[in-house]
Amino acid sequence: MLKNTYEGQDCNVARSLEVIGERWTLLIARSAFLGIKRFDGFLSNLGIARNVLANRLGRLVEHGLMEKVLYQEKPVRYEYVLTPKGRDLAKPVIALMQWGDRNLHLADGPPRTAEHLGCDGSVHAQLRCTDCDREVHTDEVAVRRTR
Amino acid sequence: MLKNTYEGQDCNVARSLEVIGERWTLLIARSAFLGIKRFDGFLSNLGIARNVLANRLGRLVEHGLMEKVLYQEKPVRYEYVLTPKGRDLAKPVIALMQWGDRNLHLADGPPRTAEHLGCDGSVHAQLRCTDCDREVHTDEVAVRRTR
Repeated sequence: MLKNTYEGQDCNVARSLEVIGERWTLLIARSAFLGIKRFDGFLSNLGIARNVLANRLGRLVEHGLMEKVLYQEKPVRYEYVLTPKGRDLAKPVIALMQWGDRNLHLADGPPRTAEHLGCDGSVHAQLRCTDCDREVHTDEVAVRRTR
Repeated sequence: MLKNTYEGQDCNVARSLEVIGERWTLLIARSAFLGIKRFDGFLSNLGIARNVLANRLGRLVEHGLMEKVLYQEKPVRYEYVLTPKGRDLAKPVIALMQWGDRNLHLADGPPRTAEHLGCDGSVHAQLRCTDCDREVHTDEVAVRRTR
């Protein structure tokens, strides 16, 4: 089995990847953003093996990114619903999707868009400065250690 | 060997993960954002096995995210420098780091920050609407298929 930890990395990119960096996990989150909630829904949307899906959903629940909600009693059936912590993955997931849109050049354009509910505008992941309140180009950003 | 493809997924999250979703790859990008360029620098910053690092750097070069630049002739030595396509990963990498900052509750605070060069403000990954030009909360965004 693939180790999930990045020992010695005092870094929240590493720690985030320990939680959501396993194969399929971010795609399960993406399917959840598309409105899918049921095991069979994820199964057909993702074309993933049952045991892998069960394992990943279990880990998402264990880490508090998804919640199991009973929707049927006989037989017992659960839906998997994103928690606020899971919904907050919209930022990295949309940033990743739009990195692909810009850099992977799909012949027939982006297969998915992010929309602002209510206003119907397009939603873009961007870097923004809290001081000057402007969009920050990737050449103008530096990642620094705080300790 | 772990398969890298997500067959049947017409999705730029899946396609992006095919390029940068392998274990360690995003952490190599993060180290590059910290200013690291040389093989031995990545080695000591990441505590990664030599063969894994060589494989991942090779794939980053192959996919056009990094460029090998000669910096010494005898013996021949190269630096690994992010291309514009690689630097554009700052958006998903910072979004992921800050998801961890908000949700993983490290006792002694975020180990790294993103700064706006020149103005020294903090840089935050956020979702923004191109129409109403406001920050979009994760509850107000819907990912939709375009085909």
